[in-house]
Amino acid sequence: MDTATRIDIDSLRINGDRLWASLMELAKIGATPKGGVCRLTLTDLDKQGRDLVIGWAKDAGLTITIDKIGNGFMRRAGRNNALAPIITGSHIDTQPTGGKFDGNYGVLAGIEVVRTLNDHGIETEAPIEVAFWTNEEGSRFVPVMMGSGVFAKAFTLEHAYAATDTEGKTVKDELARIGYIGEQEPGDHPIGAYFETHIEQGPVLEDNDKTIGVVQGVLGIRWFDCTVTGMEAHAGPTPMALRKDALQVATHLMQDVVASALRHPPHGRGTVGMVQVFPNSRNVIPGRVKFSIDLRNATDALVDEMAGEVKACAARLSAQTGLAIHIELVSSYSAIGFHPDCVDAVARAAARLGYSNMHAVSGAGHDAVYMAQLAPSGMIFIPCKDGISHNEIEDAKPEHITAGCNVLLHAMLERAGV
Amino acid sequence: MDTATRIDIDSLRINGDRLWASLMELAKIGATPKGGVCRLTLTDLDKQGRDLVIGWAKDAGLTITIDKIGNGFMRRAGRNNALAPIITGSHIDTQPTGGKFDGNYGVLAGIEVVRTLNDHGIETEAPIEVAFWTNEEGSRFVPVMMGSGVFAKAFTLEHAYAATDTEGKTVKDELARIGYIGEQEPGDHPIGAYFETHIEQGPVLEDNDKTIGVVQGVLGIRWFDCTVTGMEAHAGPTPMALRKDALQVATHLMQDVVASALRHPPHGRGTVGMVQVFPNSRNVIPGRVKFSIDLRNATDALVDEMAGEVKACAARLSAQTGLAIHIELVSSYSAIGFHPDCVDAVARAAARLGYSNMHAVSGAGHDAVYMAQLAPSGMIFIPCKDGISHNEIEDAKPEHITAGCNVLLHAMLERAGV
Repeated sequence: MDTATRIDIDSLRINGDRLWASLMELAKIGATPKGGVCRLTLTDLDKQGRDLVIGWAKDAGLTITIDKIGNGFMRRAGRNNALAPIITGSHIDTQPTGGKFDGNYGVLAGIEVVRTLNDHGIETEAPIEVAFWTNEEGSRFVPVMMGSGVFAKAFTLEHAYAATDTEGKTVKDELARIGYIGEQEPGDHPIGAYFETHIEQGPVLEDNDKTIGVVQGVLGIRWFDCTVTGMEAHAGPTPMALRKDALQVATHLMQDVVASALRHPPHGRGTVGMVQVFPNSRNVIPGRVKFSIDLRNATDALVDEMAGEVKACAARLSAQTGLAIHIELVSSYSAIGFHPDCVDAVARAAARLGYSNMHAVSGAGHDAVYMAQLAPSGMIFIPCKDGISHNEIEDAKPEHITAGCNVLLHAMLERAGV
Repeated sequence: MDTATRIDIDSLRINGDRLWASLMELAKIGATPKGGVCRLTLTDLDKQGRDLVIGWAKDAGLTITIDKIGNGFMRRAGRNNALAPIITGSHIDTQPTGGKFDGNYGVLAGIEVVRTLNDHGIETEAPIEVAFWTNEEGSRFVPVMMGSGVFAKAFTLEHAYAATDTEGKTVKDELARIGYIGEQEPGDHPIGAYFETHIEQGPVLEDNDKTIGVVQGVLGIRWFDCTVTGMEAHAGPTPMALRKDALQVATHLMQDVVASALRHPPHGRGTVGMVQVFPNSRNVIPGRVKFSIDLRNATDALVDEMAGEVKACAARLSAQTGLAIHIELVSSYSAIGFHPDCVDAVARAAARLGYSNMHAVSGAGHDAVYMAQLAPSGMIFIPCKDGISHNEIEDAKPEHITAGCNVLLHAMLERAGV
């Protein structure tokens, strides 16, 4: 690469208006009255969304491969097509009350990178691909991150195919119905490096007034179900001393879930999101309370330490009160540190482009978590309004959308070689 | 009354086997597989229960009056029928998963008193009546204690008639359908004194190993709905410091509800029985939590003091956290002290009969609460197994059933005069 070319590359910018227009166009499919999007995976609307994106990819000269779980790879050839492609992607399925940006931004940012390279006739050394992963959201079919999970062999294709929605429809039948069962075996697809651009889905960038989050990794997660068993009794005739109030005991443990996170800063997170009280009647002392515990931290050791503390608190409370407390592990996701080469590529691109930036961690799962098991991977976060996501009012600023895509462009070019 | 007669009266006892047999016979109507009874008010089963009891009353020579809300009065004439009758009663409707004794015992104990007087040819000075009140339980139609409430003019007949069940059927239509709209205006019925025999529905008598509870009064009740409003957010990407977790704030207030009861012994009671978390999702920080508060104590001043403390705690929590806390009064029932003459009549009868006994308070509402507004009233409690009621496993010992009825007999005779 001579000096003239390098200067051209350094000054290269994506077309923010075009990217924004594509986001708004895709958001029409499944648009909700409150400004959000409901485009559940493997529905007719999902098919329309996939078809639209693939149409854009074809217009941009990309070649399309669909694998057996419906993941799509849209490829721009490089100079040396024996090299593994540098891939970016995300998902275009949404939550039932989802927004315009979650996932969709990551896919369309990839399309915009390709369009920009086309505009300037830039050829990369390695091929570049834009991927969309099937059923990241998991709101119609579990598990979440299904397409990337099958790709990474976290679970089998058959397991994913057999998943049913609330009407009993299977993933396999619905994939076939919308015409998105491809030929390729999931995972039979080399990856040179993987980048994913995403709204932060949290308030940290906004709170710190930064444009770009250089994502270091994804927090480890432990999900538990906790059940406290007391004895239901009539609220009137039962004196305080003779009660076995399951809710009162539960409140202390719920508080310790938060306390354990506060004891392990800066990334410790503890949440009780779901509570069921039995029999849930105004004048009956709760006989049983079931609630969820969600613990997260930057390393598995830290999150396991938090879990140990919460269990110790439960044991203390049980001994003090005589009420049984049962804690059961529901799911566990290991902490992921993204590859230094990819993290550094993102950091360098943000610095070179002059965007304010900071280290970030992802508290939520993304398809990039599975890709990190297969190849050097990294993520780019941009702020979203009030940190709100999975909500029709999810919003992001056009200048941030543009900035994140410019960082993606330069990080990919660094890895792909020009 | 000469000495010989007095000795006869003092040694008079009800027939416990006959009372038990009647309880078991009535419990067949609406019997559930687990040994309970489901005989909701104004259903076909309720009609069958009413018909059975009235049949027994007619066999015992009683005359029947039904009022416009379906309350029944079964009268045994006295020597002086210008005197207001001494009435005992309760209800024969049950909870959906009710037991054999709640309410039913109070009515059939009255029938057994009459049968015993008949057996021995004893004539009372004042007439004696046995009442059954419509819809005490309130589980099909609200408000609870409907028949006695209309009788005491706590609300109007029209209000009660208009109440609908979940299928939209009205009290008036259902009363007419089962043939229990009578001629008498509710309340147009004199009461000399009122006694109600009931299982305790709490664990205090059993815990103290006493046979008879001499009920001093009924606790005042305040019901509130409390709503804590925070901001829902994704449990992963939202650091602890930037959260507005409605559940965590709510847990502190839930604990203060219990603490306020403990600060006001011996009769202070505080219960959070019902909790709804929004959106109630494992990985979403709760944005809103709604819960019930049930406060009770022996005087209105005490229960209002407890309510003031809980509200002050809510204001403190709201100031500390910035989260809005809204507390709304849903229902209020004044504390009732039963009439000393009736309380003493119960205490004297228990002592004379040699039953272990103690002062008791009723934490739950009963038809006697409304009667206490109209005439000297009192209640007799007997233990129930583990204090459990409103449950199919509700149980009481035959010897306690017998003892409570003997106390009723002697308390009524003291008030009616022999």
